[in-house]
Amino acid sequence: MHHNLGRILSSRARVSGSLEALVEVERGRRFSYAELNARSNRAAHLLREQGVRAGDRVALLMGNGVEYLESYFGTAKLGAVTVPLNWRLVPDELEFILRDSGASTLIFDAEFAATAEALSGRDLPVRRWLCVGDDRPGFASDYAALLEAAPELEPKLGAADEDLLFLMYTSGTTGRPKGVVHTHDSMLWSSLTVLTTAEIRRRDRYLQMLPLFHIGALTPSIATLHIGGTLVMLRRFDPDAVFEVIEREQVTTGLAVPAMLQFMWASGRRASADLSTLRSLLSGAAPVPVSLIRQYAEIGVEIQQVYGLTESGGPACLVGSEDALRKAGSTGPAFMHTEVRVVDEGGSDVGPGEVGEVIIRGRHVMKEYWNRPEATAETLRGGWLHSGDLATVDADGHVYIRDRAKDMIISGGENVYPAEVEDALASHPAVLEVAVIGMPSAKWGESAAAVVVRLPGQELEAAELLAYAREKLAAFKLPRVVEFVDALPRNPTGKILKRELRERFPGPAPE
Amino acid sequence: MHHNLGRILSSRARVSGSLEALVEVERGRRFSYAELNARSNRAAHLLREQGVRAGDRVALLMGNGVEYLESYFGTAKLGAVTVPLNWRLVPDELEFILRDSGASTLIFDAEFAATAEALSGRDLPVRRWLCVGDDRPGFASDYAALLEAAPELEPKLGAADEDLLFLMYTSGTTGRPKGVVHTHDSMLWSSLTVLTTAEIRRRDRYLQMLPLFHIGALTPSIATLHIGGTLVMLRRFDPDAVFEVIEREQVTTGLAVPAMLQFMWASGRRASADLSTLRSLLSGAAPVPVSLIRQYAEIGVEIQQVYGLTESGGPACLVGSEDALRKAGSTGPAFMHTEVRVVDEGGSDVGPGEVGEVIIRGRHVMKEYWNRPEATAETLRGGWLHSGDLATVDADGHVYIRDRAKDMIISGGENVYPAEVEDALASHPAVLEVAVIGMPSAKWGESAAAVVVRLPGQELEAAELLAYAREKLAAFKLPRVVEFVDALPRNPTGKILKRELRERFPGPAPE
Repeated sequence: MHHNLGRILSSRARVSGSLEALVEVERGRRFSYAELNARSNRAAHLLREQGVRAGDRVALLMGNGVEYLESYFGTAKLGAVTVPLNWRLVPDELEFILRDSGASTLIFDAEFAATAEALSGRDLPVRRWLCVGDDRPGFASDYAALLEAAPELEPKLGAADEDLLFLMYTSGTTGRPKGVVHTHDSMLWSSLTVLTTAEIRRRDRYLQMLPLFHIGALTPSIATLHIGGTLVMLRRFDPDAVFEVIEREQVTTGLAVPAMLQFMWASGRRASADLSTLRSLLSGAAPVPVSLIRQYAEIGVEIQQVYGLTESGGPACLVGSEDALRKAGSTGPAFMHTEVRVVDEGGSDVGPGEVGEVIIRGRHVMKEYWNRPEATAETLRGGWLHSGDLATVDADGHVYIRDRAKDMIISGGENVYPAEVEDALASHPAVLEVAVIGMPSAKWGESAAAVVVRLPGQELEAAELLAYAREKLAAFKLPRVVEFVDALPRNPTGKILKRELRERFPGPAPE
Repeated sequence: MHHNLGRILSSRARVSGSLEALVEVERGRRFSYAELNARSNRAAHLLREQGVRAGDRVALLMGNGVEYLESYFGTAKLGAVTVPLNWRLVPDELEFILRDSGASTLIFDAEFAATAEALSGRDLPVRRWLCVGDDRPGFASDYAALLEAAPELEPKLGAADEDLLFLMYTSGTTGRPKGVVHTHDSMLWSSLTVLTTAEIRRRDRYLQMLPLFHIGALTPSIATLHIGGTLVMLRRFDPDAVFEVIEREQVTTGLAVPAMLQFMWASGRRASADLSTLRSLLSGAAPVPVSLIRQYAEIGVEIQQVYGLTESGGPACLVGSEDALRKAGSTGPAFMHTEVRVVDEGGSDVGPGEVGEVIIRGRHVMKEYWNRPEATAETLRGGWLHSGDLATVDADGHVYIRDRAKDMIISGGENVYPAEVEDALASHPAVLEVAVIGMPSAKWGESAAAVVVRLPGQELEAAELLAYAREKLAAFKLPRVVEFVDALPRNPTGKILKRELRERFPGPAPE
């Protein structure tokens, strides 16, 4: 039997069709597995009628909701390839991804119609523009009516196994985002790896409040549907309102990045909220402070911290509260069905306490970077995904991350790649060179700070540089601090010494 | 990454090493995941030191316990092939399986030493005889000491994916048992199929009281270890004692064949027992009476009925209590990751209400019958497992079994194949021909009944025939009723009309 990821939903509709699959919190709509599957089938037929074929790329510029899930599963069943877009990106950034992926279809929420309109005037491969939730002049006609008109029967499955399922863009050392290629099989295994390691149960009510364009939102959402739980889904995170949602929807588990956990803990609503149904929360993207783990443990909520990458489909290591308190700094042992090693430059396992690179193997690891054979060859070597992250490992197989790859900054759960920000700032005509570093932030965990060297004789102030950058970078990537210096510190081979810059500009960043 | 089934246990030991993996109820021993994995590693090294190599067959004549599990996982890691033996079989039956499988190693419990001694005098491929729990003269020295002496580190994995994992013998129309070949991949998927469909959770306490040589015991046991539950394991089923076990061990789920459910319900201990931890019980092998499903539902225990075959690794269809009560006779829709169809002789899906053959597809289906290319070709056609069972299917995909394949009789959860019993009885010199049918039994669900035609001029009584059969057949296969007739009813092409015999001898059978 060949695995198309859409089978998860078809089978679930057959096995537990009347169970609730999705609650859209803000809109108040509810969908059973039978309904969600029927809508996904309609979406597949709709896309086919619009001319989408197996292998075509379908970009999604959408908030969390049923249309996102049905587009994802419908595209999967059809055999086409989803390209989830971060709606925080500016048009220049989106243009790059639409061109690079060769997306011929863009489905967007009416909420993002202004962005779609800005894009529609550019020379892009997009031929089909579908607006959800509104009938926009100049775009294809009403999505809701098209969906309603499409047949509900299961479509012929157009892809399976090693065929492409989605491209998720992530930056890195290069500054240019790369499309991480996941297949039907790698996503299936991401889900199974999560289900056999983290505790997501049938009939769980999973609080899904991260945007679905993140792997940390997508993978556990698929896993929740896979096992027959209910996604209690928010479009926007609100630390006060979330407690009312947990109570009313009897939420049992979910995911919150550390900044969300902090905001929630600080909320005035927490003390009076009934959290008796809440058993655990996954977290990730950055370490959760030990004090916060302990606080949540005291109210009976386990924090399960995940270390992983878009390239690993999400899973790599997981640590529960008990181990995290016992072994400060551990991100846990490898997930089930995952192998994680920490190796030296020769590829041999490091000894206890020695720092090496984290490498990951498992059926959930990406197939390749889209159209980037060199980057693929550099990252997937000998069957192992090379994370670039530096870590130590203890005798129990617990991994301790010492330095995130590529000086990556994690700000409010979003990855900010310094190279990408540096490229954008360095393109200003008055800039000679620039280094971007992370600076501690009480609110966001970290924020970007730019250390800039002006061209001789040029004048440039922080406000002007930031106004320029705002056209090129999503808001979460913008530096909160700009420092001008005469020269950047370098080692003898010319490499910029970012550690030295971090010592010179220790922060914290303003909010 | 390649999947050796032993990785399930190694990974679990890394992720949840201190959790309880196994409780041996009668012996009172308890083993954590770290301990069970370490013992399995030792078993692998022990077998290697004894000369066992990848691909060799290792037969197990053992009761439920840690040594069974460590032998199974140790053999898996080594890359050798387990042959689970039904200890209810007589030496002639075991001899056939040992020869057919070419087993070069037999591991047996001291409890079955008399059987092993009876076998040791025969011309068999077995070269290594390992006795567990006792130091038997004539057999290899003390298993416990050998295990203790073997190293605990992870062995080099000797097999993966499509390589053979175990041969489980089952009879059928031929009368000669056939070895059903399961691979590392098919067993992995049997486990994942169960985990994503039935509700077995991390930290569940699973009551395991069927002998592990049954697929219905083996697969959910592997699944329980896969997800991080605890196996609460009995060597012998006792309907009174089981309630004390459920209370003391806080059992949450498990499996009981319908006869066990009946015995338990009838037990005087039930009314006073605290069953508050018990959430659900899997059942299978035969339909559970609706009245019994309702009775268990009233005390808060869901019955999840499974339809499946050794050839499907266990899973095919599953129905919970609610659906079973709503749709009388349904065995449910297909499991997740499984496709089930009901087809006519041309291979097309039958219409509503029409009877056809059940066919099954999924990664959990067997690879082949061992050294039986013709039987394999007949059973695995076009990628589908042909069950031989006749059924109808409704609009919701629920399957209703109408006639078990090959007139199979299910007695106390054991499959009895009439052809095998007929062969044994017909070999008596005074018998001309014989037909074996099922007869209802209050205690066992069904029992075998033999309808016998004597050779002209020969005298033969039931007692003599049964004494003869006892040498050739396990006790559970022996007819409870022997009827002598002058001729068997046949259709025009000469096929025996068993339906007519069932009408003439409606039973019930004595106990």
